[in-house]
Amino acid sequence: MNEATTYPVSARGPADHDVRDQIVAAATEHFSRYGYGKTTVSDLAKAIGFSKAYIYKFFESKQAIGEMICANCLREIETEVRAAIDEAERPPEKLRRMFKAAVEASMRLFFRDRKLYEIAASAAGERWQAALAYEERIQNLLQEILQEGRQSGDFERKTPLDETSMAIYLVMRPYLNPLLLQHSFDYTDEAPAQLSSLVLRSLSP
Amino acid sequence: MNEATTYPVSARGPADHDVRDQIVAAATEHFSRYGYGKTTVSDLAKAIGFSKAYIYKFFESKQAIGEMICANCLREIETEVRAAIDEAERPPEKLRRMFKAAVEASMRLFFRDRKLYEIAASAAGERWQAALAYEERIQNLLQEILQEGRQSGDFERKTPLDETSMAIYLVMRPYLNPLLLQHSFDYTDEAPAQLSSLVLRSLSP
Repeated sequence: MNEATTYPVSARGPADHDVRDQIVAAATEHFSRYGYGKTTVSDLAKAIGFSKAYIYKFFESKQAIGEMICANCLREIETEVRAAIDEAERPPEKLRRMFKAAVEASMRLFFRDRKLYEIAASAAGERWQAALAYEERIQNLLQEILQEGRQSGDFERKTPLDETSMAIYLVMRPYLNPLLLQHSFDYTDEAPAQLSSLVLRSLSP
Repeated sequence: MNEATTYPVSARGPADHDVRDQIVAAATEHFSRYGYGKTTVSDLAKAIGFSKAYIYKFFESKQAIGEMICANCLREIETEVRAAIDEAERPPEKLRRMFKAAVEASMRLFFRDRKLYEIAASAAGERWQAALAYEERIQNLLQEILQEGRQSGDFERKTPLDETSMAIYLVMRPYLNPLLLQHSFDYTDEAPAQLSSLVLRSLSP
């Protein structure tokens, strides 16, 4: 009796999951060396020692692999941003840390490696699911801080929450979206602090 | 006796000036049809019926012609922005109009014609003199409105003027700089109003 018959429901799942992870890890390394745009699934298969058909068993296209790599990158940024927020006590400081950490993590992940930037840029430009979901999660994070600050009396309550959070998201967007961030290098040191201060002045009760 | 001997000082000046304008006008039309990047000065000379040597008498490079076209474009935007500001009475409304007019004029000038956008993008990306001077003039305009609003009591006076105006400039930048603007089309309808409101909240005394 093998494990598959003992655990019929989960046996296939975890194994597939492992292979997917393995392909994504190998693809991340391969793309980061040779670029995303020019690499075909055949190139990738050859390089990582799987057959093309085998890769297609797990991913329907190169973009599907790219989406997974991108989702991992964005999760990594989000984890750093959450950790930075959690370090602060009060909502105004949480907002400052959020902005600062988001810019730093994005700079590091997108530009440490110009080749992985390519994937992030495709994701942002072509509005991949991973990028849209990330934008939404960042907006939710922002709303949480705003709500907390409204409850604590740190932030004004007159302006509709949706309006406030969308406007602040627009202020941060040039430093979160890799397509804009690449044209904002001159400002990444100063902008988070300057813009956080402006935003906090706009939130004063 | 020809005119040159009658008006020795100005005779050469205005004539050169006219020829320069003529070259810039022809180049604007040519670039807007065939693109800036791929067109050489030889192509341009052939197309507008001047010799290459003659063009080089007035402009030292293709970029010098591009700079002039770009400067004209940016002057046009600035004129529209100034007119919009002058229509408003009070500083808060001036700020709103400034933002709105700048986005609208930029969208029209940079994207009405994708080929001229190429020149504006080069100017912004390579930090041409025309683009830097424009940025500075926009920042000055902003400072004028801020100072007026501080005097009228519409805006707070605690934050250093430089800090306030730089932060507001950073808020507007994604909609002024063509490299960022091209990735912000989804927001150009709503962002000016939403961001002006945020900025005005931040300025309240």
